[in-house]
Amino acid sequence: MTDFARTKSLFHLPEGVIYLDGNSLGPLPKAAPGRIQSVMQDEWGEMLITGWNKAGWMAQPTRVGDRIARLIGAEPGHVVIGDTLSIKVYQALASALEMRPDRKVILSDSGNFPSDLYMAEGLIRSLGRGHELRVVAPEEVEANITEEVAVTLITEVDYRTGRLHDMKALTAKAHAVGAITVWDLAHTAGATPVDVSGANADFAVGCTYKYLNGGPGAPAFIYVAPRHADAARPALSGWLGHDAPFAFEQSYRPGAGIERMRVGTPPVLAMAALESALDIWDMTTMDDIRARSLELTQLFIDEVEKRCPDLDLATPRAPDARGSQVSFRFAEGYAAMQALIARGVIGDFRAPDIMRFGFTPLYIDEGDVIAAAEILESIMQNRLWDTPEYKARARVT
Amino acid sequence: MTDFARTKSLFHLPEGVIYLDGNSLGPLPKAAPGRIQSVMQDEWGEMLITGWNKAGWMAQPTRVGDRIARLIGAEPGHVVIGDTLSIKVYQALASALEMRPDRKVILSDSGNFPSDLYMAEGLIRSLGRGHELRVVAPEEVEANITEEVAVTLITEVDYRTGRLHDMKALTAKAHAVGAITVWDLAHTAGATPVDVSGANADFAVGCTYKYLNGGPGAPAFIYVAPRHADAARPALSGWLGHDAPFAFEQSYRPGAGIERMRVGTPPVLAMAALESALDIWDMTTMDDIRARSLELTQLFIDEVEKRCPDLDLATPRAPDARGSQVSFRFAEGYAAMQALIARGVIGDFRAPDIMRFGFTPLYIDEGDVIAAAEILESIMQNRLWDTPEYKARARVT
Repeated sequence: MTDFARTKSLFHLPEGVIYLDGNSLGPLPKAAPGRIQSVMQDEWGEMLITGWNKAGWMAQPTRVGDRIARLIGAEPGHVVIGDTLSIKVYQALASALEMRPDRKVILSDSGNFPSDLYMAEGLIRSLGRGHELRVVAPEEVEANITEEVAVTLITEVDYRTGRLHDMKALTAKAHAVGAITVWDLAHTAGATPVDVSGANADFAVGCTYKYLNGGPGAPAFIYVAPRHADAARPALSGWLGHDAPFAFEQSYRPGAGIERMRVGTPPVLAMAALESALDIWDMTTMDDIRARSLELTQLFIDEVEKRCPDLDLATPRAPDARGSQVSFRFAEGYAAMQALIARGVIGDFRAPDIMRFGFTPLYIDEGDVIAAAEILESIMQNRLWDTPEYKARARVT
Repeated sequence: MTDFARTKSLFHLPEGVIYLDGNSLGPLPKAAPGRIQSVMQDEWGEMLITGWNKAGWMAQPTRVGDRIARLIGAEPGHVVIGDTLSIKVYQALASALEMRPDRKVILSDSGNFPSDLYMAEGLIRSLGRGHELRVVAPEEVEANITEEVAVTLITEVDYRTGRLHDMKALTAKAHAVGAITVWDLAHTAGATPVDVSGANADFAVGCTYKYLNGGPGAPAFIYVAPRHADAARPALSGWLGHDAPFAFEQSYRPGAGIERMRVGTPPVLAMAALESALDIWDMTTMDDIRARSLELTQLFIDEVEKRCPDLDLATPRAPDARGSQVSFRFAEGYAAMQALIARGVIGDFRAPDIMRFGFTPLYIDEGDVIAAAEILESIMQNRLWDTPEYKARARVT
């Protein structure tokens, strides 16, 4: 069993803060500053350009990709790091659409993160071949996977409610009608056990700054199923995805397998911080994380429902239907979240009325859950949210 | 006049190394590790998610963009940081092509960095509308700017020879025939005075890890001329380029001006290192840099031609026709560069026969130039390159 007291001790958590927003940005691994120092001084500083080979920077995107592969049930050698999640969505979707040239529908749902939908819109506009982005309610996805669908573009966990899709069932349905699947794991990598291989997913993408704790702006990852890896044509055909980048040929030839999903120069410093975070991930398993996560989310639901009758649970009650977050609806949720943050409980707000709390077993325990529920109770009972300051809408991140 | 002894003192340069590869990867600014520490500990560590607003991370891409704008002659508010250069090329080219829907030719040259050509190929394939990537010799670009051309995609300085295109003249020619220009400043930002505004350039892109010293994998930048900024349609339409990212609307609406060229979450840690480098850039002007650069490159050409008759100058002799690098052709250039590197002079090699040396006045002076020429002379006179070890080809970066 994972020693969660130990993993908690490996993060810097500010005094007086209960951090329930690790689903937006994970906290600082204590080892990360030292590791970046070492990469900057011993590698960049001393090796200069030779660091690309001597320090292994060039191989870092697949090496780090393998560390993430374990957490999402991917085969080693089929995950690569780089770019942002939006770019990785574009790459996966473009490659997937090309596999179904006779179909025009991209199926997504209204619980998908908007950037995924925006990237799909941009791709559709570029292609100019009459594709349609069909966005249905999350619970209507399955019924809408029909033979019209070229690609399903689904985020496994709804960023608002925490509702968890059944990746295996939806992938099977998609394959049964000849569609390709692109899964966005933004809220599942490091949050719930993902098994892209067992679920037979075609493409998967995700970010590393949420549950994985890679730091602000940490790079994204992409998975391509082994059966597609040498067939997928990259739309973003950059030199580091070329079969021989340093031959400087004039024409693009895609590299072997997942290498072709690389684009430009890898983000060496950012990957160093991510590696510190992954060292902590090496101390646990996703099954342990899931068991703890369900204890914590259930405890929070129970405590808040007991204490705060004005809050409506937006997250599915059934444990196997939710990710690792709990959301409550409250018309004055924005102000209530401001009041909470002012009292050291950091969650976040998503329009129009969602108060969102992420539970991250690596550094959140029962004591944090109870304390957060108590503070929320005092805010709700005493209407502490009802101040002009908290109700003034600022830009929320 | 810039105090170049002072700027040199602000970089970490390893003992016994003469670093003439700052055109591939600039050295470590001594202040960068401390700055990243502060961003990690005081911002990420203490502010957690609130750093996006409190620490100004969200505004960082345009704020840092403005610091680069000064170096490339851009109007403030028209440069933004993010992604890799290959991605920025794609964005610029896609937007530019859309402005000339009736034309099919993208004109580039064989001295353009291959990744630019590859990204163009990928875009052409995605568009599927019969575009042609026409690649001519660098000296034939001007004659090939015809009314067929939709977009010119030119790197201002040839990465192999250091040959400098005349941005102003080529842009004027392009505009005279109704073409749009995309300029890649990879080898000119921080190397030569660039004046994207005065040259009337339409789009410009560049990287920050070469002359600008932002670190391995530092993010890229993009400039869009003010006259196009609110008209350019982004192909990579990510949420941070949306007009209201935190409204989480279901459909994409491009943000105002250069903001629409943002895609995903900004690389906060990498930008912190870049900012340390830009602090040093604040101590100089591009005119001072250019004057020093021409002294250094001329001195190197003179010294090497005097000492090494077997090396053929590949860089234009006319000062105003070259950037800030000097290249020599030598059939055994790969081995000769290995021999040089083993003796502490770091340049690089580009296939098939180019020995390349970058001159970077912020930290390279006459003493370095003479010493490098002496070591090169001893290698050439004594055929020190002629060993099996040096001749064994490895992957060169």
